[in-house]
Amino acid sequence: MKDVTRRDFLIGTGLFSAGMLLSKVFQIDLATPVQAKMKAQKWPWPYEKLDPEKTAEMAYNEWYRIFCGGAVISSIFSQLAEKIGEPYASFPIDAFIIQEGGLAGWGTLCGSLNGAAVVANCICGPRTSGSHAGHIITTNLMDWYSNTSLPIYKPKNPKANKDHIVQTMSNSPLCHISVGKWMKASGFALASPERKDRCARITASVAYKLVEMLNAWKDGKFHEEVKWSPAGMFGITAQQNCAECHGSNIPEAPKMKK
Amino acid sequence: MKDVTRRDFLIGTGLFSAGMLLSKVFQIDLATPVQAKMKAQKWPWPYEKLDPEKTAEMAYNEWYRIFCGGAVISSIFSQLAEKIGEPYASFPIDAFIIQEGGLAGWGTLCGSLNGAAVVANCICGPRTSGSHAGHIITTNLMDWYSNTSLPIYKPKNPKANKDHIVQTMSNSPLCHISVGKWMKASGFALASPERKDRCARITASVAYKLVEMLNAWKDGKFHEEVKWSPAGMFGITAQQNCAECHGSNIPEAPKMKK
Repeated sequence: MKDVTRRDFLIGTGLFSAGMLLSKVFQIDLATPVQAKMKAQKWPWPYEKLDPEKTAEMAYNEWYRIFCGGAVISSIFSQLAEKIGEPYASFPIDAFIIQEGGLAGWGTLCGSLNGAAVVANCICGPRTSGSHAGHIITTNLMDWYSNTSLPIYKPKNPKANKDHIVQTMSNSPLCHISVGKWMKASGFALASPERKDRCARITASVAYKLVEMLNAWKDGKFHEEVKWSPAGMFGITAQQNCAECHGSNIPEAPKMKK
Repeated sequence: MKDVTRRDFLIGTGLFSAGMLLSKVFQIDLATPVQAKMKAQKWPWPYEKLDPEKTAEMAYNEWYRIFCGGAVISSIFSQLAEKIGEPYASFPIDAFIIQEGGLAGWGTLCGSLNGAAVVANCICGPRTSGSHAGHIITTNLMDWYSNTSLPIYKPKNPKANKDHIVQTMSNSPLCHISVGKWMKASGFALASPERKDRCARITASVAYKLVEMLNAWKDGKFHEEVKWSPAGMFGITAQQNCAECHGSNIPEAPKMKK
């Protein structure tokens, strides 16, 4: 199994087909009865367009209180709670501090993406509501995060890296990989003010990008095509760059009998 | 850098010290002003003990509707919404379908753990509330998941693997690794009914274990000692088994100057 190139990665042909593929390969049935009919389960949630710059600035500052996942959620939901009220006012933002450091510091999924996924799927609605927008925005955001030199956003009053900040491309949505590559390139340790400022700026950059996507979706102008369907391509959930972790010894996933 | 053994992993000496270490190494300040004071931000959430067996059965069935992350959350929050009402009734369960397959199928963090982390940190409260219980339960659950032959839970009416199911130890909280090792050991493909049943049983097993932990916490009897502090040990967010991905070439993280 060889690496998937960026070109291979951009294979999507439309939101509908992506949804169909997901339904076919990974899940069984979207239409079984809803077990818990609860108040906030009305989709999509009401949304008013936000200012990406203001949101990013809030996310940067909130990082120093509740880290990456909580900060992305707070930067968007707290504005919407003020503008709109419910269901945003009842969302337990601070609980998402747990997403920090790839969940409780284990270095798995970057919390800024984990939090952004929650935001996109509340606002646009989950696949159970018949909309695939939240899913596609999440996938686009993970692709953008993996393939962009970050951080992009410059806070008004940075707490560190005031003159210059090293940017790195993670090639992965994993905290451990993203943080590790930046630490290696910059030479700054995990507990340094510079690394903390870097992760706060990453969080702000993700919040900025997410609001751009949500605003486009609100205007009916979100038509990005990136869909990563490893289930269909590789027969297993995965990133697109197997060899970065696996080296020359990549296990072959069992395939369905034809 | 060599692998960390299970013995090294069990190094904790108390909840308080774990919280202190986290505060010292990874974050700056727990006490900065709360930017968004919202309704559901009162901690801990009211909790009544649940039946692990009933919860697991619900989680198993919900997997076929909203997958791993959503199903763990639904199995617990829908019962508490019925018993207690708010704030559970306003929680947007279905949005967490996005956690499936390691977030939108990318194979990162197993959704059952991602969902369980949300549950534990809502019920016990986030670290901003002064409680570390939700964080410690999350870490314990990730450790248990990584070091246990799963799935354990047997549903009343399994949809597949009716006579026998292969159990595997993931040594990782990552979807891709957990699913991949099971697929290799069982020979079943991702889209097979057997693999789906396996992930539904994993989800049920996690929900069962989480309720056991929450019930012990409610009784003041949760005193497990597992704390994984890679920030302190390795100087980077990480799992404990570096060599499984890195092989013989493990990058050294920059350390703080003494």
